Amino acid sequence: MKNYILKNENAVFYECGFSCDNVIFLKLGCESFFITDARYIVDAKENITSNTTIIESQDLIKNCRTILKKNKVKKIVIDPYDFSHAHFLQLSNKLGINFIFKENFSKNKRMIKNDDEIKLLKKASQLGRDAFDNFAKFLRKNDSFMSEQEMYFKAYEHLTYMGQYNTSFSPIVAINESAAKPHAKPGSKKLQNKDLLLVDAGLKYKRYCSDRTATACYKDGKINFKRDQKFKSKKHQKIYDLVYKAQLNAISKARSGMKASDIDKLARGVIEKAGYGQYFRHGTGHGIGLDIHEYPSISSKSDVIIEDNMVFTIEPGIYLPNEFGVRIEDCVLMKNGKAVII
Amino acid sequence: MKNYILKNENAVFYECGFSCDNVIFLKLGCESFFITDARYIVDAKENITSNTTIIESQDLIKNCRTILKKNKVKKIVIDPYDFSHAHFLQLSNKLGINFIFKENFSKNKRMIKNDDEIKLLKKASQLGRDAFDNFAKFLRKNDSFMSEQEMYFKAYEHLTYMGQYNTSFSPIVAINESAAKPHAKPGSKKLQNKDLLLVDAGLKYKRYCSDRTATACYKDGKINFKRDQKFKSKKHQKIYDLVYKAQLNAISKARSGMKASDIDKLARGVIEKAGYGQYFRHGTGHGIGLDIHEYPSISSKSDVIIEDNMVFTIEPGIYLPNEFGVRIEDCVLMKNGKAVII
Repeated sequence: MKNYILKNENAVFYECGFSCDNVIFLKLGCESFFITDARYIVDAKENITSNTTIIESQDLIKNCRTILKKNKVKKIVIDPYDFSHAHFLQLSNKLGINFIFKENFSKNKRMIKNDDEIKLLKKASQLGRDAFDNFAKFLRKNDSFMSEQEMYFKAYEHLTYMGQYNTSFSPIVAINESAAKPHAKPGSKKLQNKDLLLVDAGLKYKRYCSDRTATACYKDGKINFKRDQKFKSKKHQKIYDLVYKAQLNAISKARSGMKASDIDKLARGVIEKAGYGQYFRHGTGHGIGLDIHEYPSISSKSDVIIEDNMVFTIEPGIYLPNEFGVRIEDCVLMKNGKAVII
Repeated sequence: MKNYILKNENAVFYECGFSCDNVIFLKLGCESFFITDARYIVDAKENITSNTTIIESQDLIKNCRTILKKNKVKKIVIDPYDFSHAHFLQLSNKLGINFIFKENFSKNKRMIKNDDEIKLLKKASQLGRDAFDNFAKFLRKNDSFMSEQEMYFKAYEHLTYMGQYNTSFSPIVAINESAAKPHAKPGSKKLQNKDLLLVDAGLKYKRYCSDRTATACYKDGKINFKRDQKFKSKKHQKIYDLVYKAQLNAISKARSGMKASDIDKLARGVIEKAGYGQYFRHGTGHGIGLDIHEYPSISSKSDVIIEDNMVFTIEPGIYLPNEFGVRIEDCVLMKNGKAVII
C-alpha cells in the first residue's frame, strides 16, 4: 500500500528524520507531507531529511483532509490505535475515502533494523552500560545507606548523564521483596548489607532506546552490576543462577528462522524444569528501537519468525512474592543467524 | 447523565481515589466498576475509597462489554478523545448501545475544585516555590557557569526533592534568546553574568500539579526568583516591568462572574497598549489540577464564566525573537470573588 497516514511521534520520525508532539504525516505514493503547527515549523525545515512537503497549519486534520481531496485519494492505510475516536471521525467524516485499518503497521515496518539504527542502538546500549557502572561506583563510594527513592534519583542522574539524555522509561530500583513486583515503585526502604538490588533502566540516544536489568548483591559496601553475581544468601544465589542459566540458554541457542515463541521456550523451559515456571509471569522479551516496546514480542504466543537485524531484549525473571525477585535483561541483535548482546 | 465510561488515568483517579495506566472505569447510576489487570489489583483494593466493584481482567474491553450487557445499559456518555478509534470499535461493536459523545467531560467536571483539592494544590504550589528557592540558593553557591542542560538537571533535582515527587512537566530552563521560544529545550549555552534566565517548572503532590514561571537576572553570582526583579539590561527591565504590570493587572482585577476572556484581556490589554501585543502569542492561562492543563482556559476565545474555587495560571509573556523572552506565571485561586496567588 502506497498511501498511509501517521500521527505517532516515533512512527513519523522513522519516515522523515524529524517529529514533534503535534503532527500528521501523510504518504501518498512518492509524495510525503508533514503537517504541523507554527511552533515546530523552523525545526521541521532544518531537520527533515527526506523529500517532504512541510505544511504549517492551525488545524492539522482540516489541512490533511484538503490534501486528501486534492489528490483524489481513494484508499489509505491508517493505524486505528494511532488516532482517538474523535480525531478519526473528524478526519474521515463525509470524505468518501476507504480507510484501511492496519494495527501497529509502523511498528511492524520497523521490526528489522537498518545499519544506521543498529549503530544508534549499540551506542545507546553502551551508554546505558556505562551509566550502570557509574551508578555502581557511586553506590560503592557512598557510605550512608540509601533509600530506593534516593537511589532511583541517582540512577536517573547517571542514566541521563546529568540531563544530557532522556531515560527510555522510568527506572526501577527495587530492594529484596520490592524486586518481586515486576513494576515496583521506589519506596523509603534503605539498602542494607547483603540485600538484593534490582535495577531496570535505559536511556535514549538520538531517540533510540536502551534497556537493561541487573540484579546484584550489595555486600560490605560493595556492588557491581556484572552478570556474574555472588550473593550472600543461598536462596538468592540459587534463583539468580537459575535465571542466568535461562537467559544464557535463550541467548546462546536463539537462531534466525526460529519462531519468537521458540526463544521464549528456551528461557522458560529452564525455569519450568526447575519448578519455578509459575513465578516467571511475563514474556521473555520485546523488540526495541525508537519505542521501548517494539516487535518482535518474545512470548509464548508470538509466531513471528526471527530474522537477522532484529533487536530485542532477553529478560527472564523469577518473582517470589514477599521474598525477592530476580530479572536479568540484555538487548541482543540477530547477526549471522545468532544472537549477540549489544 | 448517570452512566459514563472513562479510561483516562486522571479522570479515573478523580472518581475513586486510585488509578493506573490500564483501566476502564464504568459508572452505571449509583454503581461503579474499576476494571484492570492483575498487576494493579492489590493496589486498587488498598486505595479505592469509593464504593466501587474492582474487577481483574485480561481483556478490559471484553469485561466492560459484559457488564454493559448484563445491566441492560441503553445509553452511556463517553469522551471520544479518551478512546483510540480501535478501542472504541472493539467496545461498541454490535452492542446496540447509544454512546453519547461528550468531549472533555471529565475535565469540565473537575473545573471547580473542592476543599480537599484546593489544599493539595496549595501544598503543591508551596513545594514548588520552595524548590525554586532551593534552586536559586544552589545557583548562588555554585561558582562555575552552568549550561542550560546542567541547570535543567539541577532544577529537576530540586523540583523532585531528589526523586521524592514527580515533575508536572519537563522543566524549561532558558537563557536570553532561548527564553524567546515559549517551548525551548535546554542547550549547551552557559549562564553568564547579567544574563536573563527563564525557569518554568512544576511538581506533583499527591497527583496535583504546581506550575510557575519566573524570569530572573543573574548578576555578580547572585540570583533569586522573586517577582520583583532588577535587571542589568535596561531593555530586559522595561519588558519585565511591562509583563509584571500585565500580570498584576489581571490578578488584581479578576473577579468571579467575569468571562475567562475578560481576564485574558486584563493582561493582554496592558501589553497591547505598550505596543508589544504581537509578541504575546499565547493565552493568558489555563486551569490546573490533576492535569497540568485543565479548564478554564484563560484565552481570548473562552466564554467560560469564572467562579469561586476555580484554580488557574496567569502567565502573560513577551517574546522578542533572537533577543530574549519574559514570562511571569503564578497559580491563582478564585476566592470570595477575587484571585489570590496560591
